[in-house]
Amino acid sequence: MFIGVDYYPEQWPKSRWPEDVRLMKELGVNVVRIAEFGWQLMEPEEGVYDFSLFDEAIDLLTENGIKIILGTPTATPPAWMAHQYPEILPVDENGVTISFGARRHYTVNSKTYQKFTRKIVRKLAEKYGQHPDVIGWQTDNEYGHEKSDRSYGDEDRMAFQEWLSNKYGSLDALNEAWGTVFWSQTYTAWEQIPVPRKVFQEHNPGLLLDFDRFCADSYTAYNKLQVDILREHISDQQFITHNFVFTELALKQRDIAKDLDFISFDNYPVWGGLPEPIPPAAIAQQHDLCRSTKAGKGYWVLEELSGAQGWSHIGYLPRSGHIKLWTYQAIARGAEAIVYFRWRAARFGTEEFCHGILDHDGKPRRKFEEVKEVFNALKIFGDEWVATKYKAEVGVYYDVENAWAWRIQPQSDAFTHKQELLRFYSGAYRLNAATDMVSPESSLDGLKTVIVPVYFLTNPVFTEKLKKYAADGGTVVLSYRAGVKEPNNAVTEITLPGELGELAGIEVHEYESLQNGQQTRVTGIAGNIMDIMSPATVWCDLIEPKSAEVLAVYRDAFYEGTPAITKNKYGKGNVYYIGTAVEDYFLVRLYRDIFAQAGVQTIELPDDVEMVIRDGEAGSKFLCVLNHSTTASHRVSLPKGTWKDAMTGETFKGDVRLQSLGSFLLIQ
Amino acid sequence: MFIGVDYYPEQWPKSRWPEDVRLMKELGVNVVRIAEFGWQLMEPEEGVYDFSLFDEAIDLLTENGIKIILGTPTATPPAWMAHQYPEILPVDENGVTISFGARRHYTVNSKTYQKFTRKIVRKLAEKYGQHPDVIGWQTDNEYGHEKSDRSYGDEDRMAFQEWLSNKYGSLDALNEAWGTVFWSQTYTAWEQIPVPRKVFQEHNPGLLLDFDRFCADSYTAYNKLQVDILREHISDQQFITHNFVFTELALKQRDIAKDLDFISFDNYPVWGGLPEPIPPAAIAQQHDLCRSTKAGKGYWVLEELSGAQGWSHIGYLPRSGHIKLWTYQAIARGAEAIVYFRWRAARFGTEEFCHGILDHDGKPRRKFEEVKEVFNALKIFGDEWVATKYKAEVGVYYDVENAWAWRIQPQSDAFTHKQELLRFYSGAYRLNAATDMVSPESSLDGLKTVIVPVYFLTNPVFTEKLKKYAADGGTVVLSYRAGVKEPNNAVTEITLPGELGELAGIEVHEYESLQNGQQTRVTGIAGNIMDIMSPATVWCDLIEPKSAEVLAVYRDAFYEGTPAITKNKYGKGNVYYIGTAVEDYFLVRLYRDIFAQAGVQTIELPDDVEMVIRDGEAGSKFLCVLNHSTTASHRVSLPKGTWKDAMTGETFKGDVRLQSLGSFLLIQ
Amino acid sequence: MFIGVDYYPEQWPKSRWPEDVRLMKELGVNVVRIAEFGWQLMEPEEGVYDFSLFDEAIDLLTENGIKIILGTPTATPPAWMAHQYPEILPVDENGVTISFGARRHYTVNSKTYQKFTRKIVRKLAEKYGQHPDVIGWQTDNEYGHEKSDRSYGDEDRMAFQEWLSNKYGSLDALNEAWGTVFWSQTYTAWEQIPVPRKVFQEHNPGLLLDFDRFCADSYTAYNKLQVDILREHISDQQFITHNFVFTELALKQRDIAKDLDFISFDNYPVWGGLPEPIPPAAIAQQHDLCRSTKAGKGYWVLEELSGAQGWSHIGYLPRSGHIKLWTYQAIARGAEAIVYFRWRAARFGTEEFCHGILDHDGKPRRKFEEVKEVFNALKIFGDEWVATKYKAEVGVYYDVENAWAWRIQPQSDAFTHKQELLRFYSGAYRLNAATDMVSPESSLDGLKTVIVPVYFLTNPVFTEKLKKYAADGGTVVLSYRAGVKEPNNAVTEITLPGELGELAGIEVHEYESLQNGQQTRVTGIAGNIMDIMSPATVWCDLIEPKSAEVLAVYRDAFYEGTPAITKNKYGKGNVYYIGTAVEDYFLVRLYRDIFAQAGVQTIELPDDVEMVIRDGEAGSKFLCVLNHSTTASHRVSLPKGTWKDAMTGETFKGDVRLQSLGSFLLIQ
Repeated sequence: MFIGVDYYPEQWPKSRWPEDVRLMKELGVNVVRIAEFGWQLMEPEEGVYDFSLFDEAIDLLTENGIKIILGTPTATPPAWMAHQYPEILPVDENGVTISFGARRHYTVNSKTYQKFTRKIVRKLAEKYGQHPDVIGWQTDNEYGHEKSDRSYGDEDRMAFQEWLSNKYGSLDALNEAWGTVFWSQTYTAWEQIPVPRKVFQEHNPGLLLDFDRFCADSYTAYNKLQVDILREHISDQQFITHNFVFTELALKQRDIAKDLDFISFDNYPVWGGLPEPIPPAAIAQQHDLCRSTKAGKGYWVLEELSGAQGWSHIGYLPRSGHIKLWTYQAIARGAEAIVYFRWRAARFGTEEFCHGILDHDGKPRRKFEEVKEVFNALKIFGDEWVATKYKAEVGVYYDVENAWAWRIQPQSDAFTHKQELLRFYSGAYRLNAATDMVSPESSLDGLKTVIVPVYFLTNPVFTEKLKKYAADGGTVVLSYRAGVKEPNNAVTEITLPGELGELAGIEVHEYESLQNGQQTRVTGIAGNIMDIMSPATVWCDLIEPKSAEVLAVYRDAFYEGTPAITKNKYGKGNVYYIGTAVEDYFLVRLYRDIFAQAGVQTIELPDDVEMVIRDGEAGSKFLCVLNHSTTASHRVSLPKGTWKDAMTGETFKGDVRLQSLGSFLLIQ
Repeated sequence: MFIGVDYYPEQWPKSRWPEDVRLMKELGVNVVRIAEFGWQLMEPEEGVYDFSLFDEAIDLLTENGIKIILGTPTATPPAWMAHQYPEILPVDENGVTISFGARRHYTVNSKTYQKFTRKIVRKLAEKYGQHPDVIGWQTDNEYGHEKSDRSYGDEDRMAFQEWLSNKYGSLDALNEAWGTVFWSQTYTAWEQIPVPRKVFQEHNPGLLLDFDRFCADSYTAYNKLQVDILREHISDQQFITHNFVFTELALKQRDIAKDLDFISFDNYPVWGGLPEPIPPAAIAQQHDLCRSTKAGKGYWVLEELSGAQGWSHIGYLPRSGHIKLWTYQAIARGAEAIVYFRWRAARFGTEEFCHGILDHDGKPRRKFEEVKEVFNALKIFGDEWVATKYKAEVGVYYDVENAWAWRIQPQSDAFTHKQELLRFYSGAYRLNAATDMVSPESSLDGLKTVIVPVYFLTNPVFTEKLKKYAADGGTVVLSYRAGVKEPNNAVTEITLPGELGELAGIEVHEYESLQNGQQTRVTGIAGNIMDIMSPATVWCDLIEPKSAEVLAVYRDAFYEGTPAITKNKYGKGNVYYIGTAVEDYFLVRLYRDIFAQAGVQTIELPDDVEMVIRDGEAGSKFLCVLNHSTTASHRVSLPKGTWKDAMTGETFKGDVRLQSLGSFLLIQ
Repeated sequence: MFIGVDYYPEQWPKSRWPEDVRLMKELGVNVVRIAEFGWQLMEPEEGVYDFSLFDEAIDLLTENGIKIILGTPTATPPAWMAHQYPEILPVDENGVTISFGARRHYTVNSKTYQKFTRKIVRKLAEKYGQHPDVIGWQTDNEYGHEKSDRSYGDEDRMAFQEWLSNKYGSLDALNEAWGTVFWSQTYTAWEQIPVPRKVFQEHNPGLLLDFDRFCADSYTAYNKLQVDILREHISDQQFITHNFVFTELALKQRDIAKDLDFISFDNYPVWGGLPEPIPPAAIAQQHDLCRSTKAGKGYWVLEELSGAQGWSHIGYLPRSGHIKLWTYQAIARGAEAIVYFRWRAARFGTEEFCHGILDHDGKPRRKFEEVKEVFNALKIFGDEWVATKYKAEVGVYYDVENAWAWRIQPQSDAFTHKQELLRFYSGAYRLNAATDMVSPESSLDGLKTVIVPVYFLTNPVFTEKLKKYAADGGTVVLSYRAGVKEPNNAVTEITLPGELGELAGIEVHEYESLQNGQQTRVTGIAGNIMDIMSPATVWCDLIEPKSAEVLAVYRDAFYEGTPAITKNKYGKGNVYYIGTAVEDYFLVRLYRDIFAQAGVQTIELPDDVEMVIRDGEAGSKFLCVLNHSTTASHRVSLPKGTWKDAMTGETFKGDVRLQSLGSFLLIQ
């Protein structure tokens, strides 16, 4: 198993390098990622190339048995380029050109930038493409991050117009799709179409969604441009990946992933200015998403947090145990290699306060020891663990286009797609069901339940898949705002939930958007939620059941007694519709019923505790137990049988006590 | 009485039109407004005109007995125009050009845009000016809305300079008026004068106020440009109106109204993102303002809300009963026709979530039935009701220039003109006094009390009118910050309240601006407020009575015991001065005394209930009773005598019970 | 002693001037400042000069025995200049050019502006440089205020590149200093270097700090440009000063001060929109800073608040007694002359609501009487008081570059340099220790304790000075984040607290940034803080003592028991390290121990009360007693002996009672 660090030899005097390598070896590092911000060193002036510094670093590392992942350096075009070719710079929605001085200061739509990219990537590929110790490549770095996903300059506009022309073929088709007859926006020439720069009101939702698609496709094409050149020159032994962030950028990770051997993920459960890490369920969901991005293929964590992070603002200091906990969680959910960010905190530059395994003084201390402990453990059982299989029973739908549609029209100020996705995911997470994220392209075979949260922007392929899945006996959970939008971001003409109506056996005749701080209530009238009450927030669909039975109703003056949650028989399957945002405790009760009916395996544990089971060879089970609480120890019941600690060999059975931030791998 | 809907035939397939018309007839619609966003359809390319779609729609509608109001389409210049003539686009205070892609993307100061406007309006007028079933015209749509009231481009600047040159005649006069000697701002050439683009500190208040006046005058001229062309061509039978919004735009509705036959109003008591409708008093005040805009002349509601509204954010869902309630309130306060916005929710475009009588699926349901009930009722008594007279006893002063002066210098972060206007209006509203909004141009004849809230920017004509009114026996209520500013937005040199000092019989030697969350207290020392205490917020004038008697004093360490509210004899009249912002309950007590003294008729009712009485022929009375509470029913005492329900003919006397959201018209 | 007012004769009709002068004489004014915003009057068109208005005003004033301070008018370039030479206008970080229309609309880096400055200053100097009643000059007005400290235009960029070239000599040196190897930012030509315009992330901290230094140096040069011309022409009897504001601008008051005879200060304890004055300690600290700016030399208050202030927002009304209190506080801490802002509130312009001694109506009232009382008192004892000496025992470190480094990287959202500086200053203030602000250039001789709060950006000169000071027996108080940064804004490579480690006898191995609303706790384990607990906020350094003893430890799950506050012997001195932000009550307890050990004289008083002792001739003492409470009177114990009221001659001994807002000068 590859375990390593992100290393920036260029940021330190060469006299320090041997000590760095010595400490890496002491730690157990077998791979480093380097060079992804090194363009200026490689091409100090236009057309002049110099790889001597990286040659020297690579020699030293590989002589010490450490393998290399090389980053293409395109996230940071050099100063000479920005100065000489300002057309490469991105432009914001107010028309302000983004200055040189940080990173990601380029638009992928710049022909000039594409030309420079081709040249540097070719040079790198020619140079290191057959190097025996260079095991792979990372293209660029965190595409689209930090608002670099959208650019609104002239060259972007022309590329957008061309993209639209390719997509629609005719202006009539585009005008029809966007409904430009509204507000007299009909376009009679492609060059009339704007990028969504500042307007007094809001742009056409059809244009906005297509602009996001265009931005995403531009990135996909840009990555492919790099991959194609690499593939021409590199050895079959070398892989190509990219380190994604999974915020809701105008980026399609799944599309880019098709051109990669596997994807990578930068895992930061806490970042500058946050007083606390994001919830464990949110981290888990990101790992599930990574694993699902290339259809269940394992992924690498190319940046795993090892210290407090931040640029001008720092924040929460990860506690003793967090490094191990978050590393175990990553592997349990699909990571096949772990590379820590970063070897040592930089003494200068914007990321001075991104703390690494070593701090600025370069002396090994607590974090070094904690990473060493993890590496020692992974040397014992890492390869075996990584070879096991994760078998999902519950699919949770995620389509980035749906997230964009929500960003364009959140409809309630209490709504964020991220939060609502997490809401419906968390219910399954808390029951320790084996979850997967499914996309329109995913197969639903083998899943016992498919949860489809806030399915606002429909995808006809997925809708059909879902109907077939339910008809064949699958269990489907829909939520409020299902079926509202056609793929062009127009509202369906069919009574809501639109194409999902028959599936859910209901109609939604009215609805109310609740704002921050507002709530009404629901009460269960059946099953496990019988007489249980929950606040209902964000949104209320007022349901008129057709063939569905009612599981919960609203309590409120206006729509008191109106159905809020329903269950419908559809073919051999069951379809639930949850018409509002309910609280965790209520959702977990409801999911218990749904999962029991669907035959989903669940494990009841204290709130802070997570268990992930993977299947090893010959019926063996690998059980990862994680206590995310920083203060509470918990007594938990292990699944049936005797379990052996993968590290110590100690055996456990029945109840065990878990210290705060405790994490273990048990095998049966 | 005209009752109808806003219809956008261009947004739906022609195959649907017959069904729409059938449903309209079922509803009782006798008028529709169309075409106000249809420029691109009418002039698909420069100089090429095509009215076929609207011809067809008009034919279908009028064949079915429905009359037509035509909008001129100038709120949405087409894409070809914005692309070919970018000089028509507005510019914001940072110099950012507003992009094509939404609406109102033009500056009225563009000569190019004026030229295009002339051409399209002339074409329309020639085509439909004599059409027997086109009953009238709406110019443009919601002038100045959504920040389109101010534009800061080069052509705007030149127009501003010309406007100033016309207003002041000489630079000396302008420099004197603005006090440009302050901070060395004296202008020695007209072209030196900026529009108020971004500065480090704040612009000269004189310039800012004149810029607002200029923006307003530009809109008045722009509307007149349209009206003049229409009048050349249209029949005497056709009216011209414009649908205003009444937020505090740089717009003078009263001036524009002079060129219109009557004004119209877009009545949205709740809008996207609001968790609740605005207070009933605020809606009532807007209707009073509409009625007062053209000196008591009735107005049309050209957009009356019929469903939940919003663009990217929705919000409060109007309850069953709200459509009727708000419609009755509108008519009771002066609306002579009601047109609902909109017939059916659009499936595309920025306003997808502006819900109409029909939702996206086009099926009649609850809202359709509620509108039908209203239309049925109005067919019985609408004409008779509209023919009655509203006779105001209490005038409340509103001058948009005063609102602008406050926007420029709010002086306390707790101050908004809208809120403070509402504060002093609400006291009268709660006592169901018959209120009117009065402007500097209004006659005060017949009013028993004139309330002049936060009369910061004085108007010499009005000040004189007020003095005469008081001298002749009228009752005047002034508030804090009266008399501070001269019309050029300079501070008076006279001891405060400046020109109002003699009227109020006081001097204000000091004052304190209270910020959000800060308050002191007042206690009444006479009459109905004797020993009653209220928080005092926003502002405290420390009053030195000259001839006035003291009604209330401050309670506070620094100005403990200083007079806060006074009453003065002035000629035959009485003048009250309320030196601070007191709470509703306190103000109502005070107003009871004032109204009793002035002979204003009041009706004491529960807080949620509103009554509006209109005078019919032969001494008959039309009493509209409205319960704005969504949850509480109320027992209310009817005014003396026997009342007959205009709809059912049922008779009532004495106390009656009013359901939540109940609304009735009773006749005596 | 000079006591006077800021007067703007140009803003009033000449017919009013005699009355103004009469009232000034009644008040006791002996000096006025004029003309600092009068450029347009002096140079109504390019190259045409006219000083007649100011001549006339000066004649009238001086004939009445009032001396003149003349401002150079460069804070407000006239409209003709901005229009004809738009290159003088500043540009913001988004590239938006700041418009004419307010003040400070120039960049000091404009060659054109420098040329115009030279001409007007020369004209003024030639004209009034030998005038017997013009006693001095103020250059410009409040340099850098209101965001005018930084400009990001093309001419600024070129000047920045030149400044960098002068500073670093070679690009290699610059690249090394900034660590441009990070994110591939290495510059290969000076013209590639940007000013810090908008980027997606954050600029290089080295560039940001140097940009602030450059902006400050540009202002220093610009002031020197004025001073040099003045010195050429003016009499030796005339002084040159500048009225500073002391917010954390990109300005080096100490550098500018070197070219001035003395500095001046604009003292506004409360400003527009503030509900309350800033804390008394904050005012005191600003005075200490003024006195320290030119190494203890007395300074003038050229704008002392006399009424409620604000532009579009007003705020707190200073109470009766505030004028006297704040004036006494200013003199006690080093002011040698007091000039009130402003004589009378302007009737027009942005500062309409900057209230003066007179309000808009020009009638003398409460404030006039209060100023008169102060002037009468100062006539009795002002000269004698101003001649006394302030002898500091406690130095508090303040280096504006450190403040800039914190602004660039606050690291916690709970951190502001201003607040944390005040925190560590306040402890000494509350004990009425005689404080001074010390800079890297200050001598530490004679100080008994030096407090060095949040010494993030180190200065090698000061660090050495501090070590020597401690070694020689001085007491040093360091705080969290000491020693982090090298002067180029890179992080030290030495284990924290870096160069201060040996001094403090500790190492800091980890730390946590706490966000707003977050806290942990500390408990004292020795001395006066034994068993006392305080919240710990903002930041926690986890200390590993080397030679230091532990005075307090953290209480918290993660670092429970870790040292938080330590004391170290260093040479003959003692060095304290306070690793977190503790509350006032705790800090005061700790400081009591520290000051007792160091022999610092303290006076224990109620919280609201401030005492400042100055040394007169022949061992006399001048004791200023100030009660800042607006509501509470306090009993206070006078220092030993009999004290005579400087105004009334009344004598006091032992305990006296102080009314709220009471202020006295007592002499012994």
